[in-house]
Amino acid sequence: MIVILKRDHNPEQLESLVNWLQEKGIAIHTSIGEANTILGLVGDTSKLDIDLIAALDIVEDVKRVQEPYKNANRKFHPEDTVIPVRDTWIGGGSLTIMAGPCSVESEEQVVAIARAVKASGATMLRGGAFKPRTSPYAFQGLGETGLEYLKAARAETGLPIVTELMDITQLPLFKDVDVIQIGARNMQNFDLLKAVGHQDKPVMIKRGMSATYEEWLMSAEYVMAGGNENVILCERGIRTFESYTRNTLDLAAIPVLRKLTHLPIIVDPSHATGKYWLVEPLAMAAVAAGADGLQIEVHNDPEHALCDGPQSLKPDTFDPLARKLLSLHSVVSGLEGQA
Amino acid sequence: MIVILKRDHNPEQLESLVNWLQEKGIAIHTSIGEANTILGLVGDTSKLDIDLIAALDIVEDVKRVQEPYKNANRKFHPEDTVIPVRDTWIGGGSLTIMAGPCSVESEEQVVAIARAVKASGATMLRGGAFKPRTSPYAFQGLGETGLEYLKAARAETGLPIVTELMDITQLPLFKDVDVIQIGARNMQNFDLLKAVGHQDKPVMIKRGMSATYEEWLMSAEYVMAGGNENVILCERGIRTFESYTRNTLDLAAIPVLRKLTHLPIIVDPSHATGKYWLVEPLAMAAVAAGADGLQIEVHNDPEHALCDGPQSLKPDTFDPLARKLLSLHSVVSGLEGQA
Amino acid sequence: MIVILKRDHNPEQLESLVNWLQEKGIAIHTSIGEANTILGLVGDTSKLDIDLIAALDIVEDVKRVQEPYKNANRKFHPEDTVIPVRDTWIGGGSLTIMAGPCSVESEEQVVAIARAVKASGATMLRGGAFKPRTSPYAFQGLGETGLEYLKAARAETGLPIVTELMDITQLPLFKDVDVIQIGARNMQNFDLLKAVGHQDKPVMIKRGMSATYEEWLMSAEYVMAGGNENVILCERGIRTFESYTRNTLDLAAIPVLRKLTHLPIIVDPSHATGKYWLVEPLAMAAVAAGADGLQIEVHNDPEHALCDGPQSLKPDTFDPLARKLLSLHSVVSGLEGQA
Amino acid sequence: MIVILKRDHNPEQLESLVNWLQEKGIAIHTSIGEANTILGLVGDTSKLDIDLIAALDIVEDVKRVQEPYKNANRKFHPEDTVIPVRDTWIGGGSLTIMAGPCSVESEEQVVAIARAVKASGATMLRGGAFKPRTSPYAFQGLGETGLEYLKAARAETGLPIVTELMDITQLPLFKDVDVIQIGARNMQNFDLLKAVGHQDKPVMIKRGMSATYEEWLMSAEYVMAGGNENVILCERGIRTFESYTRNTLDLAAIPVLRKLTHLPIIVDPSHATGKYWLVEPLAMAAVAAGADGLQIEVHNDPEHALCDGPQSLKPDTFDPLARKLLSLHSVVSGLEGQA
Repeated sequence: MIVILKRDHNPEQLESLVNWLQEKGIAIHTSIGEANTILGLVGDTSKLDIDLIAALDIVEDVKRVQEPYKNANRKFHPEDTVIPVRDTWIGGGSLTIMAGPCSVESEEQVVAIARAVKASGATMLRGGAFKPRTSPYAFQGLGETGLEYLKAARAETGLPIVTELMDITQLPLFKDVDVIQIGARNMQNFDLLKAVGHQDKPVMIKRGMSATYEEWLMSAEYVMAGGNENVILCERGIRTFESYTRNTLDLAAIPVLRKLTHLPIIVDPSHATGKYWLVEPLAMAAVAAGADGLQIEVHNDPEHALCDGPQSLKPDTFDPLARKLLSLHSVVSGLEGQA
Repeated sequence: MIVILKRDHNPEQLESLVNWLQEKGIAIHTSIGEANTILGLVGDTSKLDIDLIAALDIVEDVKRVQEPYKNANRKFHPEDTVIPVRDTWIGGGSLTIMAGPCSVESEEQVVAIARAVKASGATMLRGGAFKPRTSPYAFQGLGETGLEYLKAARAETGLPIVTELMDITQLPLFKDVDVIQIGARNMQNFDLLKAVGHQDKPVMIKRGMSATYEEWLMSAEYVMAGGNENVILCERGIRTFESYTRNTLDLAAIPVLRKLTHLPIIVDPSHATGKYWLVEPLAMAAVAAGADGLQIEVHNDPEHALCDGPQSLKPDTFDPLARKLLSLHSVVSGLEGQA
Repeated sequence: MIVILKRDHNPEQLESLVNWLQEKGIAIHTSIGEANTILGLVGDTSKLDIDLIAALDIVEDVKRVQEPYKNANRKFHPEDTVIPVRDTWIGGGSLTIMAGPCSVESEEQVVAIARAVKASGATMLRGGAFKPRTSPYAFQGLGETGLEYLKAARAETGLPIVTELMDITQLPLFKDVDVIQIGARNMQNFDLLKAVGHQDKPVMIKRGMSATYEEWLMSAEYVMAGGNENVILCERGIRTFESYTRNTLDLAAIPVLRKLTHLPIIVDPSHATGKYWLVEPLAMAAVAAGADGLQIEVHNDPEHALCDGPQSLKPDTFDPLARKLLSLHSVVSGLEGQA
Repeated sequence: MIVILKRDHNPEQLESLVNWLQEKGIAIHTSIGEANTILGLVGDTSKLDIDLIAALDIVEDVKRVQEPYKNANRKFHPEDTVIPVRDTWIGGGSLTIMAGPCSVESEEQVVAIARAVKASGATMLRGGAFKPRTSPYAFQGLGETGLEYLKAARAETGLPIVTELMDITQLPLFKDVDVIQIGARNMQNFDLLKAVGHQDKPVMIKRGMSATYEEWLMSAEYVMAGGNENVILCERGIRTFESYTRNTLDLAAIPVLRKLTHLPIIVDPSHATGKYWLVEPLAMAAVAAGADGLQIEVHNDPEHALCDGPQSLKPDTFDPLARKLLSLHSVVSGLEGQA
């Protein structure tokens, strides 16, 4: 950590700061410049509160040199994390395709979609039983019944299920779910993150609409600090001034996170754009940029879907897309090998 | 609601849409233009799913004409809502000043601050017992004990207390709190909003960091739909590209919300900026723009505060500020009267 | 155009509006709803000032149904525009690769880079002679001399040259340039756009840092309205709250523009990210999403480049990338054919 | 400047960096930490290219300690700049009110408005002769004739005139203008900034829609580096995700700039919001936050204005507002005095 002192700092206050830091086991290297004096803090600075130091009268600015996350940090865990889920796994060079309806509507619907997407190459079934809706008057999901339908579809197809947990009180119902999804709006619901940190099943954290990479990784850190190392990150677009698309998909997140963390990275082009005809080009782009997988909405009847119809593909448009994605993934892996 | 059809729409699909709408009791006025055909939907369109219609093959675009919120809508509730809280009230021409520490640290601390801010003119005591922190390694608040200290300060000073609820499971502890605060990160934690919608005490909803006015009002609508009409909105800055300040305080929110809703509007310049020296000018600006009140962080020892020290005022800087704010409020009210 | 009237509108003012519109040859279809009365305006509404109508006392809102651009609009020009540039062309299924240094520094440098990138598969040479720099104290480019060096490199390699025009007064020097580039900061320098609209050479318009798709297309419309139909659009990232990357590359721009316009779309991953190690994954993603080409910074000695070194590749890292991009482009074109 | 080295940096490359810096007269203080080695660079680092150093193989990050602007920096120029304009001045405790039409439409119009706003307390006349319009088909301003009408209004009322310069080629026409305005879209039109840096009249720079405080100050620095010290900064809203208002007015800019620079700060609530009914509350807020002045659109017939009618006040609504602003300014100055 670097502490930049004000030009005319009070020497007594400086001495008091230096003593306080030394008591905490921090060594201090001082550089006296023409315009500024700078303290280089050496030692375990991860417990120091950067805001507290920045607030001191004699301090002009403080700059962190190390990342504030550890469990999620590739520096301390250089190997890619690979997460087994039933007969499949996420990460490690594979291409995960999570497909299914935004919202579970009936057993027939979800079983039919699950069969179709499996035949096209999907490796997991996604579907919402508890739905975060902006309006209290909109359909809120089938809840526990929806979870039962998902399990029925899994029994039928063998596809593991990924579904969103919205509140701690729903946790008992999620015992038999394969991957717990934390939605973008709950990315900083810290009590929820702590609760899933004590579960023994993988957790996929969607990026908050205005979350920086660091904040997103800190949310992963919350889960990992509780002992659950199986965390997946899902980019689903950020909020910007551009309103033509629902959000702006940030594909730089893939290589940036690849560098900063060892956790697998999934991309959701359906929610990012809100338009079905943008799903294919952005799914292709995500694979070319090195994503570990995709989450894609597929509905048998998007025009009558109870939520998010506009962004859903039909099984017969998903089928050629899934095949293209798998082809592209093997081509890109091959090109990578040549480099 | 306005439905704009594609140029070359299929007439059978159009007939099917028209029938479906008429079954729902919607009358349809058709305008056939040179470039586009437009349907004007007349009747109670609040139950129609705009996204579903937008997803139809024959539809180019759908535009909503009415706001999606009702209980929070000034059109249906023209009078300002005034919320009584113990011996004081929020709204109705008064200036509420909520002051206190970001985080409750000890009984002595919070009692001392409560006494000081009351003497300066504060009307309510704010203080966090449960703290949303970006890092799992940062101080998370004193929890239940913190709530006890706040009550002790209330017993001592008579100031009603405002404090943040982070999770439904904490609700039983909040029975004796005066105003429940929902933090910016939980603005779209819909289960939490539903839960406080069933409480009989006022709820203050902070604006999410990337929430539009409409989304914020929809969160108020969630609480009101549950039967709790005593909702307060708190502007605390939005996330933008400018990183010099922690967030960008959006003071246009005050007159815009004044027009759209009847609910009272509080401004928090401390969290918005993250810098104590910006609190005064922005608090003054908020009063001049017509805010119903302010939430200001005051700490007796900001340099050693366990969180958010940099944005806290000391009691002796808060004192002249509170006096200025009250003077300004009476001047502005007087000028308003002249207009 | 749709005009939504206020609930309690004055009938005389309405009559006056209706007359005014009819004088302009606009037919009006009225829908009287329970809550609102809506006017559907039929005829050539492109000359009506939407803001003027929105400002009327009786009007609650106005919504445009048609895009405000014509020459750039695919609806009126369904075929893709293909732009010939010397022996090559932009658009039409080819993959344009514009490569070269951010800033021209010497004849040796630019000739050496031009030779190298041509050998790797680049189809055009990019290089800055006039440089927009945030600081007045930073290197501002070699100016006219820089243009001479670019021409020398073209003479040597046959690669057409693309270079930025910053001000109208520089136009006489650009007579022998192949493609004029308008930088992101000048995207709404309307006098400059008008001036290049009267040139007979292709113009590439970089997206402004906070420009919507529509504003960007309106800038293309400025050039096309002057008679110059050879416009290329270049996505180079938009400004968002995420500061890890210099900008956020918005790859949804590719399929969105493909739908809205017939103009070719180039992607610049170097400026978008500001980091050389992000160029490859995002260039790959751009090709997979269907871009017509890329603009990539290549410098023989990025550590000593006079500007933007951090985002430049070296010739020996550009070489395998260019080969991968060309392979990927042919694979993606093939997959497209299958669909 | 602080240079943070990579953990496993090559010692030879480090030696080469150290030698290179020492040749430039920079002294180096090294702090060897457990995780990182840090170089503190002491001396005149303003000429070092931060990006170049950041690009070096052995460097993990570089952090600037000093601001990159000098002439505009309050550290080197502690006194407020006060700019005389004919019989009035900008800064120094006064409240400048620039009022007038968005666009000059006729001599009668501008003279009538000038008379009215002068009577209400305005100190300067604003009006556009050259208009930046998003669409090439929109009214582009009266140009030279518009400037003549402004001068006629000045002759009639004595109010100095502020008007926008869009391109260098228009400069000869601006000889007799009092304050040259640089529009938001031209804030980084560096050739234009250089050109007005050589003029001997005040220049008001509007903040670019996505410009940081630092970029804005660097644009002021461009003008000042040319020798023109009379620069005024005008906050007019930034682009954010919130689309209810045209832009988001950032009033924190006032106290932040007050700290960073000695230049006067004007606020334009009309363009920031795009809605006339938001002008008053935000103008009041700007004065309370300490602005040196306001720029407000006033039109005698906003419903038929050729541009930006929706955000214009009429003279009879401007009149009580101007009086309120002047009252508020004297109250706020008085409260300031007490503190």
